[in-house]
Amino acid sequence: MEMESCVPPGFRFHPTEEELMGYYLKRKINSLKIDLDVIVDIDLYRIEPWDIQDRCRLGYEEQSEWYFFSHKDKKYPTGMRTNKATAAGFWKATERDKAVLSKNRIIGMRKTLVFYKGRAPNGRKSDWIMHEY
Amino acid sequence: MEMESCVPPGFRFHPTEEELMGYYLKRKINSLKIDLDVIVDIDLYRIEPWDIQDRCRLGYEEQSEWYFFSHKDKKYPTGMRTNKATAAGFWKATERDKAVLSKNRIIGMRKTLVFYKGRAPNGRKSDWIMHEY
Repeated sequence: MEMESCVPPGFRFHPTEEELMGYYLKRKINSLKIDLDVIVDIDLYRIEPWDIQDRCRLGYEEQSEWYFFSHKDKKYPTGMRTNKATAAGFWKATERDKAVLSKNRIIGMRKTLVFYKGRAPNGRKSDWIMHEY
Repeated sequence: MEMESCVPPGFRFHPTEEELMGYYLKRKINSLKIDLDVIVDIDLYRIEPWDIQDRCRLGYEEQSEWYFFSHKDKKYPTGMRTNKATAAGFWKATERDKAVLSKNRIIGMRKTLVFYKGRAPNGRKSDWIMHEY
């Protein structure tokens, strides 16, 4: 994504969790205009973690974090369980849920997921970590 | 300085040295318009390092680096030596000069200075460091 034309030189996208939830996610959910399209839509279950970086790259800098929107895919049409499998593996939630605060008020939760290569209940844990807001 | 109105949420000013010299300093020298006035003018010899932060603050975040423009003050009207003293101390150059590159071409030099409290040749070294481009 080419940003030089919109944001003055020297600015980098380093959002706080409050900005991610309170601005970007909130406006996305409400179909409101987002100032600058820095967070792209992907289908998380049709893309492997190592391919996400190319889709979500901002400018030409080295990045170690990428931002995206993705719909939740229901495992069964009537259930609440979500399908977190890709072709190569699956995302598994950890117990490390965290509240996101704005002005001392909880505005949402952050869930941490780890990518495992292979199929549950087996699979080899990888270094790919995702925060779901 | 209030920036929320100009730059989309989540963006922070973390310029590279190439951007500082190739865009901000170059345009300043040539009196060209700078997209966003994030780098303020100060008179380095009339302000103590610990007072710079208030003048150069951006938004409401914790900062450990501040950016500013300042004219060089000649020690003697006819000489090349610059005066680097403030009321409380002085800036002393180190030997750690570094070239700043853009596309493998040197576009300028970075000089590193340390602030000493007191008067040269005495003075107590402080933790304040300045990069002069």
